[in-house]
Amino acid sequence: MSADETDETRRKPSRRGLLRGAAAGAVGAGVVAAGATAGPAWAASGEGAASGEGAAAGDGRVQVAVLLYDGFTALDAVGPYEVLCRVPGVRVTMVGRAGKGPVRTDTGELSLVAERAMRDVRRADVLLIPGGGNRGVLAMMADTEVHDWIRRIHRRSVWTTSVCTGSLILGATGLLRGLPATTYWASRPFLKDAGATYTPGRFVETGKIITAAGVSAGIDMGLHLAARLSDEKVAQAMQLAVEYDPEPPYDTGSPEKADAATRELALKLLDDAAT
Amino acid sequence: MSADETDETRRKPSRRGLLRGAAAGAVGAGVVAAGATAGPAWAASGEGAASGEGAAAGDGRVQVAVLLYDGFTALDAVGPYEVLCRVPGVRVTMVGRAGKGPVRTDTGELSLVAERAMRDVRRADVLLIPGGGNRGVLAMMADTEVHDWIRRIHRRSVWTTSVCTGSLILGATGLLRGLPATTYWASRPFLKDAGATYTPGRFVETGKIITAAGVSAGIDMGLHLAARLSDEKVAQAMQLAVEYDPEPPYDTGSPEKADAATRELALKLLDDAAT
Repeated sequence: MSADETDETRRKPSRRGLLRGAAAGAVGAGVVAAGATAGPAWAASGEGAASGEGAAAGDGRVQVAVLLYDGFTALDAVGPYEVLCRVPGVRVTMVGRAGKGPVRTDTGELSLVAERAMRDVRRADVLLIPGGGNRGVLAMMADTEVHDWIRRIHRRSVWTTSVCTGSLILGATGLLRGLPATTYWASRPFLKDAGATYTPGRFVETGKIITAAGVSAGIDMGLHLAARLSDEKVAQAMQLAVEYDPEPPYDTGSPEKADAATRELALKLLDDAAT
Repeated sequence: MSADETDETRRKPSRRGLLRGAAAGAVGAGVVAAGATAGPAWAASGEGAASGEGAAAGDGRVQVAVLLYDGFTALDAVGPYEVLCRVPGVRVTMVGRAGKGPVRTDTGELSLVAERAMRDVRRADVLLIPGGGNRGVLAMMADTEVHDWIRRIHRRSVWTTSVCTGSLILGATGLLRGLPATTYWASRPFLKDAGATYTPGRFVETGKIITAAGVSAGIDMGLHLAARLSDEKVAQAMQLAVEYDPEPPYDTGSPEKADAATRELALKLLDDAAT
């Protein structure tokens, strides 16, 4: 606090830069340049930049494709989006299973807009599959067109990732067979069906596949990915940029910490709110 | 873990309930009923339930209105949405400043769909104002129609809340005058312009106003609100439902913990990604 208070007294607040109120003088351009220009080897070698075909292909940035489908969970997609979209040289695109346009979440109370249709996207550097409610995830687990698309993107991806029950969709493609993985806490038993081994952790990285635990774990994985796609300085700055210094009001965020009644109630609330 | 492993061996995984893999038998209906039917006094007294006028008014649920405007920050809105939308008897509605339909975020890489237009909403039990980039927040701070609307909603609201720089919009209406409040870390000096006193905390509650710190702090505030709108059992269950057991990869989530270079880089990344 004392550093900020000193800055406050030094600076005259200006409406031109609301977000810069507590900033300490000139921008550290050298630090930014390191993150923005050095980048990982695969980006410089021509492996980055590609995305889809047609109108919006290859703008020179690392393309992150987030697959949206009817019944996905909003925070699974938005958590990683928020910490990746400002990483230098990264472009996040929402990709709709059924086409461009609004895609409903699992509660039906919110829609996110898909900018591109799945059928129009042939390539992405990073694929992210969010989880969803039972209805949406079961539909995706049975959707062979989606499986073909995921496998095609995965062949040339740098990272193939999932959040929450998104790993069950990834698992349905066969890509998790024989691998360690994680998923939503209540869905852990179903990783066996995909031939994967449940492994504890907010996210589990194996080769180029990263699976995250439930919903909010996508933020933790997103920051890890930010470091992988750029460097740790950028990831640390993005953690500050979203002020991710969490103070959960309770200690019930994992099934190991919550009691049986809390676990049951959580599942009941999810069931009741599902569309 | 041991409890879950026992459950796993007891249950035969069924595709019918992916989210129930680790659940322990019958649902604790009594627990749910306590949250769903008892509720806070104001809900039972007829103060709840109201929302807007016209088509979708008063369906008997607590109405949470999230104000979306061009240039808002997605996670500011989606964090609280995700932990509130499943609270029994709560309905979250995205309300668009300019009307119904897609509203662009601060990076321009994502749009959320507003279900209702601001001009059609005359009442909400809970108002939530997300933060945004400089351009969007400055526009809202100068938008007297928005200020009139916020003050009108606030007169009958049960809770009036903001996330991140949303408090500067709230402040522009005069509603924070003389009150303790928080905001985005880099915007703390600007609370003075609203006559408010910066107060540390992931969120600051004063009377019926709650202001949250930056971006991800909306999740912490959302869980607090979940308890206020229902009870602690429900809030604890929602924390588990979104598996909010955070493990940030770095210890740079607040300006007190991050060094000067990280603070500068964070602000640079925000600037560069802004539209």
